[in-house]
Amino acid sequence: MTQEAFQDYYPDAWAQCYGCGRLNEHGLQIKSYWDGEESVCSFVPRPYHTAVPGFVYGGLIASLIDCHSTGTAAAAAYRAQEREQDSEPPLRFVTASLHVDYLRPTPIEGALELRSQVKEIKGRKVVVQTALSAGGEICARGEVVAVQIPENMVFGE
Amino acid sequence: MTQEAFQDYYPDAWAQCYGCGRLNEHGLQIKSYWDGEESVCSFVPRPYHTAVPGFVYGGLIASLIDCHSTGTAAAAAYRAQEREQDSEPPLRFVTASLHVDYLRPTPIEGALELRSQVKEIKGRKVVVQTALSAGGEICARGEVVAVQIPENMVFGE
Repeated sequence: MTQEAFQDYYPDAWAQCYGCGRLNEHGLQIKSYWDGEESVCSFVPRPYHTAVPGFVYGGLIASLIDCHSTGTAAAAAYRAQEREQDSEPPLRFVTASLHVDYLRPTPIEGALELRSQVKEIKGRKVVVQTALSAGGEICARGEVVAVQIPENMVFGE
Repeated sequence: MTQEAFQDYYPDAWAQCYGCGRLNEHGLQIKSYWDGEESVCSFVPRPYHTAVPGFVYGGLIASLIDCHSTGTAAAAAYRAQEREQDSEPPLRFVTASLHVDYLRPTPIEGALELRSQVKEIKGRKVVVQTALSAGGEICARGEVVAVQIPENMVFGE
């Protein structure tokens, strides 16, 4: 895919997140894109992202679902407002709740694919559902309730 | 506290987890202990564990709750069997489901405290509820359904 990722549109001040901030050099720097009505993200776990050897650490799975979902929420909110992601004012979402069902052990070899659907957009809230696959098999499912960033997390003022 | 942490009893082969494995040099290496009927864990986020500057990344919070809960599940299962944590066979739990409610932005300065209660022990399943605090204020609540490690994740055979 050649288009910009959702996270590439985050203003610099909001691009520090360990999971998805392009400016966090220690972080995961995930990238999310639209694929029609779904959003997708591919991530290759590092060898040390292990639970027991051979399988992915559940906290990484939760982190990927979390950040991909808040990115999807922002992108969906721009779409709902018929705005481009580089238009003002910027939209950024944080997580109100995260739920993950771990369906089977997730092999650590190769890329994980996250594929999400927007279940609901209502006011400042967006609900995103995600399936995380490895080798074409769904290993975890997640649901995130994302809310537009609260005033007490807006900084740089 | 001078006693051994739950994670110090994990057999070497199960001590590779990014969140709680004492042998994962890249990982968080969390340590959990009993405090009466509750389990506790203290963790100081690193400066790059940020969501937006000043606040903790939600994926870290999910990861801490996840690993502290599976450690608590194992410790609770030993207790229920009236066994020491260094007795054979070893018990290790993985996460079937994880739920986190983010109640307020979590400040990144200082230590986070996790305090958990075992809600249920039934067969191979243990349900653990956790409150995560910063500066004495509860910032997130979590619930983990942990299950004894399935045969297809047991390795080194």
